Amino acid sequence: MADQQTSRFGSRGQKDAVEEGLVFQPKFDADGLIPAIVTAADTGDMLMFAWMNEEALALTLETGLGHFWSRSRRALWKKGEESGNLLQVVEMRTDCDQDVVWMRARVEGDGLACHTGRESCFYRSIPLTSSANAAVPLAPVQRNPRKP
Amino acid sequence: MADQQTSRFGSRGQKDAVEEGLVFQPKFDADGLIPAIVTAADTGDMLMFAWMNEEALALTLETGLGHFWSRSRRALWKKGEESGNLLQVVEMRTDCDQDVVWMRARVEGDGLACHTGRESCFYRSIPLTSSANAAVPLAPVQRNPRKP
Repeated sequence: MADQQTSRFGSRGQKDAVEEGLVFQPKFDADGLIPAIVTAADTGDMLMFAWMNEEALALTLETGLGHFWSRSRRALWKKGEESGNLLQVVEMRTDCDQDVVWMRARVEGDGLACHTGRESCFYRSIPLTSSANAAVPLAPVQRNPRKP
Repeated sequence: MADQQTSRFGSRGQKDAVEEGLVFQPKFDADGLIPAIVTAADTGDMLMFAWMNEEALALTLETGLGHFWSRSRRALWKKGEESGNLLQVVEMRTDCDQDVVWMRARVEGDGLACHTGRESCFYRSIPLTSSANAAVPLAPVQRNPRKP
C-alpha cells in the first residue's frame, strides 16, 4: 500500500521504491517531523539526536548546516546560531524505511554538541541487567568509546 | 515544570534531575514509544534505528538482547527472533533529555542488522546542496565510513 503522505520532497512510493529506490522520499510523522541522528565525522562519536521538520531538512541539505525543529520551543532551530557551535554536515544518509536521517558532522566553535556544555549528549550509560521494577541507575561516562 | 508522565521506570523529574541526575527517567512519546539508535559495538558503524515501548526497553535491559516495538505490526519484536540475527547489547546510553536510547551492540547470526539483508540500514546517502524543490537523488554507499 502506498503511503499517501506528501511533502515538498514529493510523495512516498511503494515499499520497494522506498527501500531500494534512489529518490529521497523522507517520511515525516504525524507532527511533521523526522528523527535526526548526529555523529562526529572525524571520530564517529555519537553526538546528539533531534528532530527536523520539512523546512529544517531542506535548509540542512541546501546549506550544509544542521537545522532542526525544537519541539519544546516550537520553532526552527539553526544549531549553534547563538553559541557558535554550528553543525557542518559532511554526509547525510537515510535508512531503509527513509523515516530517519543520520548526519556525520563537525561541530564548529567550542565543539560542544550538547546544550549542557558537553561534547556529546550521551554522557550517561544504563547498566544492563537492570530491572525496571526498581529505580534504574545511570552511570556517568567520560566520553564515547573509540573505534579499536 | 515537571513532566507528569509516569511509566514502570517511574516519574520524570525536573529538568535538572533529567539532565544531571543518575536515575533513568526515560521519556516515552504520546504513543508510548522512545527512539532507539543501534551502532556496532566493535566498529562504531551505524546499524539501525527503531522504537521501543516500555516493555521492549525493560526486556532489553533485563536480557541484554535488543527488543523493539514494531509500529507497522503493532507488536513487540525481539530482533532476530526469526532470522537468528539477535542483537547482543554491549552498552546502552541515554541522552541529556532522556528521550532517546543508544545501544552499542553485536549482531549475531549472519550479522545483518537490516531486514533488506544488509549489515546496516544506512546504505544510501543524500547529496548535500540538494534542493527540496526538485526530486532529491540518493546515492548508494557500500558501507559505513570507518574511523581513521
